[in-house]
Amino acid sequence: MALGTDYAQQDCSLARALEVVGERWSLLIVRDAFYGVHRFNDFLAHLDIPRAVLTSRLQALVAAGVLRKEPYQSSPVRHGYVLTSAGRELWQPIYGLAQWGERNASTGGPRTVFSHAACGTRLDPVGACPLCGGAVAPENITMQPGPSAQDRLRQDPVSRALARPHRLLTLVSPDAD
Amino acid sequence: MALGTDYAQQDCSLARALEVVGERWSLLIVRDAFYGVHRFNDFLAHLDIPRAVLTSRLQALVAAGVLRKEPYQSSPVRHGYVLTSAGRELWQPIYGLAQWGERNASTGGPRTVFSHAACGTRLDPVGACPLCGGAVAPENITMQPGPSAQDRLRQDPVSRALARPHRLLTLVSPDAD
Repeated sequence: MALGTDYAQQDCSLARALEVVGERWSLLIVRDAFYGVHRFNDFLAHLDIPRAVLTSRLQALVAAGVLRKEPYQSSPVRHGYVLTSAGRELWQPIYGLAQWGERNASTGGPRTVFSHAACGTRLDPVGACPLCGGAVAPENITMQPGPSAQDRLRQDPVSRALARPHRLLTLVSPDAD
Repeated sequence: MALGTDYAQQDCSLARALEVVGERWSLLIVRDAFYGVHRFNDFLAHLDIPRAVLTSRLQALVAAGVLRKEPYQSSPVRHGYVLTSAGRELWQPIYGLAQWGERNASTGGPRTVFSHAACGTRLDPVGACPLCGGAVAPENITMQPGPSAQDRLRQDPVSRALARPHRLLTLVSPDAD
């Protein structure tokens, strides 16, 4: 089990968290759910991952209580995946990791800019609003492409839909536009 | 490369961060470095991972500028691994993920309690001091076993040394005690 998915000998909350979200692609799926992606085929188009991997990760995230299935169409019934309240609590570490990646592992400035929807101020590195003070909950955050995104945006329909300024957690359905 | 170590098609700072610290065990190695572990054999004893995996992860973290090698003995020369300033910036997302794991994926309460060294107040869920206000830098944080750690502490020498209250980033050398 040395390279399995658990950390049985590590009695630590970080190990428990990584057993839930530490597998390859899992945090990018959760990120996409914050951005409003919710349908299986939209995750597939946006993430470019094998269908079997996506299926496995979504099932694991549902089993762990990070995502839940929710119908988005009734005839025939189709289910999407939305963040639970526990899943929404992952915003702070995901935002922190992304900010770290922007400062330390990226070039060319931010691809995406996150702002406090109420006042339009760009969030600081720990996800707080410098104008209003305090952490901003994801549903009160607006995302839009940053100044360096212009030439590099992916051209799949999901990426184009996500490039329009919108609130986090607002469901995005590209082909319904 | 679908299950490789990069996310070439994901133009996102989170993907860049995960390329650096998203491999299995990497974040637990970085966590140990915050706790004061710095010698190869101490990481090995504390993490229970194969030697080859530890070697590979340490090399990758040095190459990415998260850790740097530093001599801790001169005759013969021996090197340990300490966090760079970029590596230290990972404290906030690591703490956030661990807090999430404690709330959502653990049982029995916190194994480790983190406090603001200056006033002794336990940190809040985003790593700030509720008494003094503001985020607390890792070098100003004291760690000690939480109330639920008693019966579950690992008994290797590194775990025993880490169980004594101490500041983060203070190097721990078990057999020198």
